[in-house]
Amino acid sequence: MTSRIPVVEKILSANDRLAVENRSRFDAAGLFSINIMASPGAGKTSLIEQTVSALKGQLCIAMINGDIATSFDADRAAAAGATAVQINTGGDCHLDAVMLQSALPQLDLNQIDLLIVENVGNLVCPAEFQLGTHKSILVASIPEGDDKPYKYPGMYRGVDAVVINKIDLLPYVPFRMEFFKKGIEALNPGSDQFELSCRTGEGLQPWLDWLTSQALRKA
Amino acid sequence: MTSRIPVVEKILSANDRLAVENRSRFDAAGLFSINIMASPGAGKTSLIEQTVSALKGQLCIAMINGDIATSFDADRAAAAGATAVQINTGGDCHLDAVMLQSALPQLDLNQIDLLIVENVGNLVCPAEFQLGTHKSILVASIPEGDDKPYKYPGMYRGVDAVVINKIDLLPYVPFRMEFFKKGIEALNPGSDQFELSCRTGEGLQPWLDWLTSQALRKA
Repeated sequence: MTSRIPVVEKILSANDRLAVENRSRFDAAGLFSINIMASPGAGKTSLIEQTVSALKGQLCIAMINGDIATSFDADRAAAAGATAVQINTGGDCHLDAVMLQSALPQLDLNQIDLLIVENVGNLVCPAEFQLGTHKSILVASIPEGDDKPYKYPGMYRGVDAVVINKIDLLPYVPFRMEFFKKGIEALNPGSDQFELSCRTGEGLQPWLDWLTSQALRKA
Repeated sequence: MTSRIPVVEKILSANDRLAVENRSRFDAAGLFSINIMASPGAGKTSLIEQTVSALKGQLCIAMINGDIATSFDADRAAAAGATAVQINTGGDCHLDAVMLQSALPQLDLNQIDLLIVENVGNLVCPAEFQLGTHKSILVASIPEGDDKPYKYPGMYRGVDAVVINKIDLLPYVPFRMEFFKKGIEALNPGSDQFELSCRTGEGLQPWLDWLTSQALRKA
């Protein structure tokens, strides 16, 4: 007697399959990887600069930067002490798993503790493309306004942590922190949040501690 | 004797064809239309609020707002005195000519002097989709940083005017105005530029004068 066994298989898109491959390579190398996303000018590169400067004595850090044009950001990360690889997306509004995979041969993954991927500045499209990184980080910024979780739910829903940058500008712009955080909590309950200023350095330590503990857990 | 006459025809995409149709309708109605684009939080809606408040005595103004979620922005424009129509793009990262066309039956175009279209907050994708509006306006903002023309050339190349908002924050953030404007000039020589603050009202008048003169020229 034979019985039919239903096979339930999650159909993965081509991008998702490559993201899974990327993740396997990161895991095999024992590195911790993050995908940093944000609007243009929210402070992704400033956060990476500060992070690399603070942690380069403890962790070997590499950074892959996706931008439409220029290598400004990769240059800044390299100056701060990271091994930096530039992906010019040639107009594309987001990174995808294919682009990330194509950049990996330029790095010795076994030597890396922390891989930081800086996505294209865009609060919409990058949320739709898995890269294979372990955690997704959204950098918000005070001058962008407190309505952003409500207006860009896809991005706020999909991330593991929100860094709220430019808190030094709170005295100069209208921003209701409670309203902003209520929006995050509705979309993404329990996500980690860090209020800081990359310019003044205020509030950076809890972010660095979180990142270090995540990276050491993978090692 | 017959001679062959070469027919050179510009092949328009489906979107471009609809943009041409939209433009014809605007021209037939004698209205002036603008497409306002920007990063999330640069101040599109604040600029529209200030513009509607200042000009509603002189011009009949309507506003079509494209957003992924919420009607926050249309509500703000309506409160300022514009007839406002909301398009929820359902996740799409930009407006296109089809979406705009679908919103037009909700307006009496013949009654309108100035039609303001507020695009989705995105510094990449909206630049690729013509809507049929007469002029494209980019709202930049001081806290976004002075490298944006270099990093988002597609957007800076395609607009008729750049509004540089949040100049009240110049004392508090690093921003080299000369470097920023050099980037605009390289991509888009001769484009109009307005430095202003929607929050304090500083610098609004030249923008309002430019807009009014454009609208009256069409009437």
